Amino acid sequence: MTEISTRHAAARRIAAEAGALALDYFRKWDQLTIDVKGHQDFVSEADRNVELAVRAALAKAFPQDGIVGEEGAAQEGTSGFTWVIDPIDGTTNFINGIPQWCVILACVHNGKTVIGVVHDPVHDELHHAVAGGGAFCNDRPIRCSAKTSLREGSLGVGFSGRTHVEGIKRLVNGCCDAGTVFWRNGSGGLSLAYVATGRILGYVEEHMNAWDFLAGHLIVAEAGGRVVPVDADEAIARGGRVVVAGAGVFEAVQALATASYDV
Amino acid sequence: MTEISTRHAAARRIAAEAGALALDYFRKWDQLTIDVKGHQDFVSEADRNVELAVRAALAKAFPQDGIVGEEGAAQEGTSGFTWVIDPIDGTTNFINGIPQWCVILACVHNGKTVIGVVHDPVHDELHHAVAGGGAFCNDRPIRCSAKTSLREGSLGVGFSGRTHVEGIKRLVNGCCDAGTVFWRNGSGGLSLAYVATGRILGYVEEHMNAWDFLAGHLIVAEAGGRVVPVDADEAIARGGRVVVAGAGVFEAVQALATASYDV
Repeated sequence: MTEISTRHAAARRIAAEAGALALDYFRKWDQLTIDVKGHQDFVSEADRNVELAVRAALAKAFPQDGIVGEEGAAQEGTSGFTWVIDPIDGTTNFINGIPQWCVILACVHNGKTVIGVVHDPVHDELHHAVAGGGAFCNDRPIRCSAKTSLREGSLGVGFSGRTHVEGIKRLVNGCCDAGTVFWRNGSGGLSLAYVATGRILGYVEEHMNAWDFLAGHLIVAEAGGRVVPVDADEAIARGGRVVVAGAGVFEAVQALATASYDV
Repeated sequence: MTEISTRHAAARRIAAEAGALALDYFRKWDQLTIDVKGHQDFVSEADRNVELAVRAALAKAFPQDGIVGEEGAAQEGTSGFTWVIDPIDGTTNFINGIPQWCVILACVHNGKTVIGVVHDPVHDELHHAVAGGGAFCNDRPIRCSAKTSLREGSLGVGFSGRTHVEGIKRLVNGCCDAGTVFWRNGSGGLSLAYVATGRILGYVEEHMNAWDFLAGHLIVAEAGGRVVPVDADEAIARGGRVVVAGAGVFEAVQALATASYDV
């Protein structure tokens, strides 16, 4: 196996284990009463422990690789490979018992994302891709939507407190005027996987962090979709705008994003 | 058992059976290739067959009751009880493989909804209520959110082609300006159940059909939430605006809806 295929296999295994751990917390939470433990404490513990498990598994398998995550300090590597991880994406859903969240692992090499995994343990869907190797949900090849009009489906949208609300307001207004239906499930990572499976036409968010989008970005591209290209190292440093869609609607989606954010 | 408790038990059983049938279609669809059968044909068949199963089960258990559904002709009854059913709410999600849809049954008597069931078979969550009897998810009592500020959570929003887009645009803009996060999963029925479990703060839609909202409306009210009251017979005839939320944010949610739709 090559350096990349070894890491791909490990990423799937580690994401599967991390997903199982997160799912265990998700189901336990449902059974706890709010009095026993505060929401925020509980989710912080889940997030932290899943991240620690992922970091430990990566460090054991690839001790020379770097690791960057939403939680905890970045760990420099010497191999040229850097893992970019989000233990639980869609934390607000997770904390509220909404089954729309995921575990995300990406692996970056020379400024490019070479492996992406978005795992949804609630629904046993592990989306993954290797650069140049196609995209899969578990063992099934996946493809972005072949639709050619925004009117034929829904467009995923996201936003965060890192950006001003005027951008998302213009984006939703633009969706409505274009005759497409905006869809917002509160997990950008899972939404990107849904673009790759053709469940939604595309996804747009003004600013996402690298750990939230690098994996999904690669999976969409490998599923035949189009993406606004990013330099992965730049994304790790500063995050970036995310615009992805099936090829048939990409230009229309990009026009919506431009009209919403570049004013 | 009273007339109502007999119907409540039957509604849970029939919704569980209908959910299992719909779930079977949902999972099969995932395994079919698009070439074998068109999306629209398949979902029409699923929708129709689930509705037929629900109608047959209701007619067998309560031959004197009326039935109104999204599909098929209304059936007049003589008992004073009318069932209002939506075999698959969130059809677009269903057709696209997104696990956010539900089976809905409501029972109306003297202009009031007396039983509501919203069943999410993917996640084995059967939400239900009897007027005056509290609200439950499976056998667990549920409560709306106790939060008192829109900034503390997400607000579910919905819209359809039956209304002009200006209303939903104003609503989303209003959410953003109020510091709350809009959330749109594409299943109004399931969103109402999520209000009842406190997963989202509230739900607003300019116009819903009776089969989409009467059940969830009752479940929210029985879970301690507040709702803009509706006459169920009027709703069956014409549908209506839906504004529901946890008591602590209801007035703020109602103000958002008014500012969005009554201009």
